Amino acid sequence: MPEFRAGSPEQVSYLEELVRAGLLTQTGVAGVYARGPEFERVRLGFDGLVTRTAAPEAPEALYFPPLLPRLQLETSGYLGSFPHLAGTVFGFDGDERDAAEQLAVASRHEDWGAFQTMSDLVLSPAACYPLYPAVAARGALPEGGLTLDTGDSYVFRREPSSDPARMQIFHMREIVRVADRDTVISWRGEWRARAEQLLGSLGLQIELEIAHDPFFGRAGRMLASAQRELELKWELLAPIAGGTQTAIASSNYHEGHFGDIYEIRTAGGDTAHTGCMAFGEERVTLALFSSHGLDTRTWPSGVRDKLGL
Amino acid sequence: MPEFRAGSPEQVSYLEELVRAGLLTQTGVAGVYARGPEFERVRLGFDGLVTRTAAPEAPEALYFPPLLPRLQLETSGYLGSFPHLAGTVFGFDGDERDAAEQLAVASRHEDWGAFQTMSDLVLSPAACYPLYPAVAARGALPEGGLTLDTGDSYVFRREPSSDPARMQIFHMREIVRVADRDTVISWRGEWRARAEQLLGSLGLQIELEIAHDPFFGRAGRMLASAQRELELKWELLAPIAGGTQTAIASSNYHEGHFGDIYEIRTAGGDTAHTGCMAFGEERVTLALFSSHGLDTRTWPSGVRDKLGL
Repeated sequence: MPEFRAGSPEQVSYLEELVRAGLLTQTGVAGVYARGPEFERVRLGFDGLVTRTAAPEAPEALYFPPLLPRLQLETSGYLGSFPHLAGTVFGFDGDERDAAEQLAVASRHEDWGAFQTMSDLVLSPAACYPLYPAVAARGALPEGGLTLDTGDSYVFRREPSSDPARMQIFHMREIVRVADRDTVISWRGEWRARAEQLLGSLGLQIELEIAHDPFFGRAGRMLASAQRELELKWELLAPIAGGTQTAIASSNYHEGHFGDIYEIRTAGGDTAHTGCMAFGEERVTLALFSSHGLDTRTWPSGVRDKLGL
Repeated sequence: MPEFRAGSPEQVSYLEELVRAGLLTQTGVAGVYARGPEFERVRLGFDGLVTRTAAPEAPEALYFPPLLPRLQLETSGYLGSFPHLAGTVFGFDGDERDAAEQLAVASRHEDWGAFQTMSDLVLSPAACYPLYPAVAARGALPEGGLTLDTGDSYVFRREPSSDPARMQIFHMREIVRVADRDTVISWRGEWRARAEQLLGSLGLQIELEIAHDPFFGRAGRMLASAQRELELKWELLAPIAGGTQTAIASSNYHEGHFGDIYEIRTAGGDTAHTGCMAFGEERVTLALFSSHGLDTRTWPSGVRDKLGL
């Protein structure tokens, strides 16, 4: 079983409030919820705001489903860094006798994993992952590189928790830049100001932090400190559930990592660099409910307008 | 490996056309695609049209993610009927040494399934499945029962194919009625007319068929013929890819199946009956492109208006 990350008493009681208000519905598995209509309206309102904010760049949208070819997880480096967070898809390849046995075991709610075999699909761990091989398949980048948009994509992180802000499956919206090194670095700087402004304009108390990913194991601690030292990741934090500062958006600079793996070349023939600006849509939505209250009718009119409520 | 359902030459060449037109992008796994911006615009336009068509009933929307508690698959009867279509989620529970071994096997693109264990989640096989336990948890139904709306939910069916209409993961939009027997039966009749009208108004050549689900094995053939005999399932078909008639919407009447399993009671204390009206959004979208051509600018203006294009 994966480590259960218990929420604080404030987080657990905030989750109960969200459920009572019809904003989230529990499914019986920690960190997996149904969203109620008003939660969804706020989430989609924010998603629309990101679309408008990114529009001047005219990003090309590619809408990937929540499943990724297993081959891509194997080549992306994810399994080395985050084996504990990955989810893989298994299926049944047996005959009628196997099916009957599997059903009998499953009906007793025992482990029927022995009847399942690994498929060629995994759950998508980040919205931008499927973009890189798709871009690579087109050949060299156009002059100036590419800006892409994942839309509101489901991603999976296996970290069950009773903190409502730590979901196992949620929507990540990413704007991604694939270009030469200098272009990606300056693009990231522009989005840092733009994202702070965007989230601040919704009445959120935003804090910027140079951050690191939750790398696995002892070797992971070195990766994390290198990532922080090189300022490859920053996060924007806002208070959720009793004031806990929680990352609601982040930006990663991958240097030539994906360019190397998928052999993405700039128009000039160099290895492309990549960077992304990611919004955790459920977390942004939770931060808005935490800041402005559970009844959207009482939210500041400027915020309501921006979200189209 | 699951059976690969090869598409006809017409279907395969239609898929190539869709890819060339930027409507779909292949991922390397059959039946898993990224949707391009214009494909997505049509899909969401249709989704909005369903919202407006269902509005007079004021259905209650609950937006579930594409993952379902494994327990629900075990109790729903799905594993008996469709073991071959189910997808289960596995994860890694090992230590650093296991992680290093797993990575080594995965990097050679061999089967690293031995390092993965079954989690408490599966892929959602139908949009309405998570609704039933959520409704049951509320206690007896209100007078007149409930009408629910899943929104555009991802569902998974493990049937890789080169027919673009047979995707492994796609959006199903369901309106679901949970009430007494007579109410559900007459509601289904109303939606039959409403759905035919809705799809016909988009210029699709619709055909209605009393149908059956793709039950597994020999016992499944008996289930299928009983389902057809009792007219528990009907489908609306439209031509896709070289004229093949393909189900783009369907309605199932489950009688007391889910009411029994989850102990859902009507206000009067009887076992609730359930029925659903489901639209396969990617298939509807494909049918529209098949009927009106790959360039939405040339579509009939009435159709464009209805879809908000």
